[in-house]
Amino acid sequence: MQLGMIGLGRMGANIVRRIVRDGHTAVGYERRPEHIDQLSAELGDSFQGSTELPKFVAMLTSPRVVWVMIPAGATGAVIENLAELLEPGDIIVDGGNSRYHEDIERAKALRPKGIHYVDIGTSGGVFGLDRGFCLMIGGETDTVAHLDPLLKSIAPGVDAAPRTPGRTGEPSTAEQGYLHCGPAGAGHFVKMVHNGIEYGAMAAYAEGLNILHRADIGNQAADEHSAEVTPLEHPDYYRYDIDVPEVTEVWRRGSVVASWLLDLTAAELYADPTLDSFGGRVSDSGEGRWTLDAAIDEGVPAPVLSAALFQRFASRGESLYADKVLSAMRQAFGGHHELPNQ
Amino acid sequence: MQLGMIGLGRMGANIVRRIVRDGHTAVGYERRPEHIDQLSAELGDSFQGSTELPKFVAMLTSPRVVWVMIPAGATGAVIENLAELLEPGDIIVDGGNSRYHEDIERAKALRPKGIHYVDIGTSGGVFGLDRGFCLMIGGETDTVAHLDPLLKSIAPGVDAAPRTPGRTGEPSTAEQGYLHCGPAGAGHFVKMVHNGIEYGAMAAYAEGLNILHRADIGNQAADEHSAEVTPLEHPDYYRYDIDVPEVTEVWRRGSVVASWLLDLTAAELYADPTLDSFGGRVSDSGEGRWTLDAAIDEGVPAPVLSAALFQRFASRGESLYADKVLSAMRQAFGGHHELPNQ
Amino acid sequence: MQLGMIGLGRMGANIVRRIVRDGHTAVGYERRPEHIDQLSAELGDSFQGSTELPKFVAMLTSPRVVWVMIPAGATGAVIENLAELLEPGDIIVDGGNSRYHEDIERAKALRPKGIHYVDIGTSGGVFGLDRGFCLMIGGETDTVAHLDPLLKSIAPGVDAAPRTPGRTGEPSTAEQGYLHCGPAGAGHFVKMVHNGIEYGAMAAYAEGLNILHRADIGNQAADEHSAEVTPLEHPDYYRYDIDVPEVTEVWRRGSVVASWLLDLTAAELYADPTLDSFGGRVSDSGEGRWTLDAAIDEGVPAPVLSAALFQRFASRGESLYADKVLSAMRQAFGGHHELPNQ
Amino acid sequence: MQLGMIGLGRMGANIVRRIVRDGHTAVGYERRPEHIDQLSAELGDSFQGSTELPKFVAMLTSPRVVWVMIPAGATGAVIENLAELLEPGDIIVDGGNSRYHEDIERAKALRPKGIHYVDIGTSGGVFGLDRGFCLMIGGETDTVAHLDPLLKSIAPGVDAAPRTPGRTGEPSTAEQGYLHCGPAGAGHFVKMVHNGIEYGAMAAYAEGLNILHRADIGNQAADEHSAEVTPLEHPDYYRYDIDVPEVTEVWRRGSVVASWLLDLTAAELYADPTLDSFGGRVSDSGEGRWTLDAAIDEGVPAPVLSAALFQRFASRGESLYADKVLSAMRQAFGGHHELPNQ
Repeated sequence: MQLGMIGLGRMGANIVRRIVRDGHTAVGYERRPEHIDQLSAELGDSFQGSTELPKFVAMLTSPRVVWVMIPAGATGAVIENLAELLEPGDIIVDGGNSRYHEDIERAKALRPKGIHYVDIGTSGGVFGLDRGFCLMIGGETDTVAHLDPLLKSIAPGVDAAPRTPGRTGEPSTAEQGYLHCGPAGAGHFVKMVHNGIEYGAMAAYAEGLNILHRADIGNQAADEHSAEVTPLEHPDYYRYDIDVPEVTEVWRRGSVVASWLLDLTAAELYADPTLDSFGGRVSDSGEGRWTLDAAIDEGVPAPVLSAALFQRFASRGESLYADKVLSAMRQAFGGHHELPNQ
Repeated sequence: MQLGMIGLGRMGANIVRRIVRDGHTAVGYERRPEHIDQLSAELGDSFQGSTELPKFVAMLTSPRVVWVMIPAGATGAVIENLAELLEPGDIIVDGGNSRYHEDIERAKALRPKGIHYVDIGTSGGVFGLDRGFCLMIGGETDTVAHLDPLLKSIAPGVDAAPRTPGRTGEPSTAEQGYLHCGPAGAGHFVKMVHNGIEYGAMAAYAEGLNILHRADIGNQAADEHSAEVTPLEHPDYYRYDIDVPEVTEVWRRGSVVASWLLDLTAAELYADPTLDSFGGRVSDSGEGRWTLDAAIDEGVPAPVLSAALFQRFASRGESLYADKVLSAMRQAFGGHHELPNQ
Repeated sequence: MQLGMIGLGRMGANIVRRIVRDGHTAVGYERRPEHIDQLSAELGDSFQGSTELPKFVAMLTSPRVVWVMIPAGATGAVIENLAELLEPGDIIVDGGNSRYHEDIERAKALRPKGIHYVDIGTSGGVFGLDRGFCLMIGGETDTVAHLDPLLKSIAPGVDAAPRTPGRTGEPSTAEQGYLHCGPAGAGHFVKMVHNGIEYGAMAAYAEGLNILHRADIGNQAADEHSAEVTPLEHPDYYRYDIDVPEVTEVWRRGSVVASWLLDLTAAELYADPTLDSFGGRVSDSGEGRWTLDAAIDEGVPAPVLSAALFQRFASRGESLYADKVLSAMRQAFGGHHELPNQ
Repeated sequence: MQLGMIGLGRMGANIVRRIVRDGHTAVGYERRPEHIDQLSAELGDSFQGSTELPKFVAMLTSPRVVWVMIPAGATGAVIENLAELLEPGDIIVDGGNSRYHEDIERAKALRPKGIHYVDIGTSGGVFGLDRGFCLMIGGETDTVAHLDPLLKSIAPGVDAAPRTPGRTGEPSTAEQGYLHCGPAGAGHFVKMVHNGIEYGAMAAYAEGLNILHRADIGNQAADEHSAEVTPLEHPDYYRYDIDVPEVTEVWRRGSVVASWLLDLTAAELYADPTLDSFGGRVSDSGEGRWTLDAAIDEGVPAPVLSAALFQRFASRGESLYADKVLSAMRQAFGGHHELPNQ
């Protein structure tokens, strides 16, 4: 089967590589010709590409399947241009990180033209070429079914994890690593929540490791604790010098918190045991915010996911004004002074 | 009635002043003679003091009432020394910020000696001389009843607030600003929770004011938002330049969030509209932590109070290691880079 | 000065009463004639009303000032109808609980018609007639200035609270209880954050009182603690039977947490000491959600306000599915059983 | 090497099985003779046991190694009895869920007798027999080194996970699944934090799945939303009927949130797709509370871990009084009514 790929960055190129490995062919569009040249050199006859959108479209056989894999901010304009060049029956896939609201709008806008729209949330990061990509899919049932051969090649496959007890027979697509989640937007909705969970789980590890990291606080000289901070009642309980990198390593085998995120954390801590190469200003890329918006709209509590998001905001200094307000209040009612900078 | 006061710092001296105003007499112990001299000059025959504990005790008439009003860290040792000098029937009051666990132990230790122990949580801060002090009291019923004339003079009195609808007749002591909350420790327990609430309410204001403060984010140049932070969907919703000091002032009259804390906040923001005199490193003095310990022991949720406490910890940089862990994880799975320092 | 009021429910009627008390006149529109009749009987010549919108508009003198005080869901349609009947130079005030996004849209839509739009967030609840209403105002400077005589009458006035130290001379409008916060939407924006703070402060009290309420947990028979819940390490620390209604009363005088919310809480607890008349399913009316949306858009941490909102969601049973997921996980990895219903 | 095991429940018996598989021998103490009989039948000459503690001790060769694997509440008394029977140079291992404070005390108490004490936090749950147990160890270096052959057999071994990039040569013990974390208490300290992280990660999944579960809220009839709850602005965004069990399955392969906890969740949801067999009253067994106590003592923020713990408390109805306070306040200032029970 043939796949057209718009955007041959790391993600797009790796998806192309995976399907070609499985015997499919690919056509690529990318403004940077060196990306096209590299894939051509690598994949031979199974791949061709163009730096011009109309030529790219002309290389595709009907019904065309065009996967757009570019930054979310640019996706809307590209799909509009693309839609001008496509024909009824063609399929556009948005594999990027669009907000699912846009999927709902786009699917509606493309429907009168007979163009099918599929949104695919794609997880796997920089490891997807080898591990495969986890695919969360939204769109019409028939359209998604048509894409099945490609999806199967992109996804990790059933062998990527032991089968869940009780599941036997022909593996479901979910077991192979791809799932049709519902109509337009459902793929990005599920991916959004996936990332929200990711924020929460990451924060759980980060908080726990911080508690291990500070387990030596009882060894600090008492005079480091000013009158403004209550003294430690039992310093003897906090005289541990925990080797955090080794702890993350030991948890990887046999423990309840073993996970891929922990594997990565252990690798980072092995490479940089003190994390001195990081400044601690943590970015967020939208999905965590959108997940919270959804929780709020649904009226569903999300205290952990919100705490994780707000921790990121705070890491970038966005609590400063609030903190100053607190210091001002404390001065006002109690004559308390702030802790000096250390 | 006569009160012995150990510690003539701001709080202790103001309590002495309030009772003398009401016709009681006071005896003070304080190592700094200038504090004694000042009160003597001010209060005349109603006050005498000593820099030596035995002399102080000798000046008191039986049954002696000794109020200890010194930093929590020093209270235990002073009470032990004091107990050696007192007689059965005497009363020790701890009016400081002891943890209520200690009250339970102290009352138990003093009981065989026939010395009565009363713990009093005292709120009112630097304004107590004029407003009166809110007193939360733990101890035996008879002992607390014996202190009633003094407590009534220290507390704000019923006129400090309009009477609660439905309450008529002789005002209860609670309506006068003092309350016997239960046996030993109950006073400091209630004061501890009072401070926990204070942390939560303070944080509510601080967070809200921060949201007002940043209501101009839509006016920032778009390029300030790097690729690592999702762009603002509706910048037009965030083009307000809110005068935060004036907002705190307007809320003081007629609004649901009017409070004494808000009064103080408005005063601070009037004096320093940008809060530039503060660095934002917020202290905590124990009660917030102990409140959470109690919530955890009781198995009672306290998400707001904990968030308020943790915000203070984070204001002092204690999230840094956790934040670095998050940045390391993001780099690992997505090749994401941290936001640079601005 | 003359005010047209659309909606003579409790809030609208009380605003009319306040301005008439101050010598202004009012015209009312309301579909329920008995509301009009009552105000007419009460206010005499100073008030006239109609159940028909065109007649109501005809009773107003140019430039007309029409204050819309109806449920947020109905406001948009009424303003559209009204705009058809008004003339350039007239002023529409939305005093309800609209989301500020709508103010921005409405002001823009009315501008070509020469109709001025002002949004006013109004706090004061059922007590506004006597206490006055705290007014947070968005709109053009000239238009808001034109309304000044009315706003002054509706607001509580400077005597409603002691003046902030340092503020002298002619009181600012903020000191009188009304504030022009910025252009269209600014009034409802500030009111929205006001309510967000209200949620947080309410939750702080509620959590603290819950900790007091459960301070007797050490008196429970040990066998009430199943093997699935860790036993209390120090039951002696939790043997208090705190009189929560009296505690809220004592805090009203002299304490740091004194506030109007506390006054109300004390009144409720006096009337119903066990709160048996409540089921604990707490509503939320939008502003808390919108405040969080704003915090998320601004990238500003709001852990306390979010915890307060989510607590309300959870009070309505919206955590149930999440809780079941947790129980399922615990069973899976540890063979743990759920706690039975009591 | 020989291991004495006190407590032949599931955990103790499985540890015995793992070491015998590796060529070690075991002696068991257990009050229930059928547990001894079963292991004897299963393991033949490699195992012997007794229902009497002195006989058990007599079967052990010096220096004796006695692993105590019983409920935390009973561990202290058993260790005291045991210590009476042991000799200098013998080793006691507490492999249960003791709080690390107790380890510090026990090690100190046993030191004068020349008995060595080792605390081991053990993760692996019901799957440990096959997967191996992750071991977090506290104690003296020499003593822990002496136990190495046993620990190696109990732990999962390096093949249980791919090696972390960069780690080559002889695997560290952490890579084999066991780690000496520091002096007495360090093992249970690290295990405690492990469980704290577990709470947080579990909650992240649970909240996310709840958001997916309620993604159909836009399909509810509008009249289900009472006037007390703000209407959904965009119902079209919430018309998804997400198959949550399949989503957990698809995330197991290739996604960032793949983990053992997710594997278990997928298995539970496959077996009971609606989770109807659970009531949602979630227990907690101490470590989550202790982790928070440590964070509070250290002054380290733990908003996610605390939110996770409090969610469990709330699942058991412990928010009810706080919720009633909120309803009472809302009635007081706004005349708002509670949502009725559905």
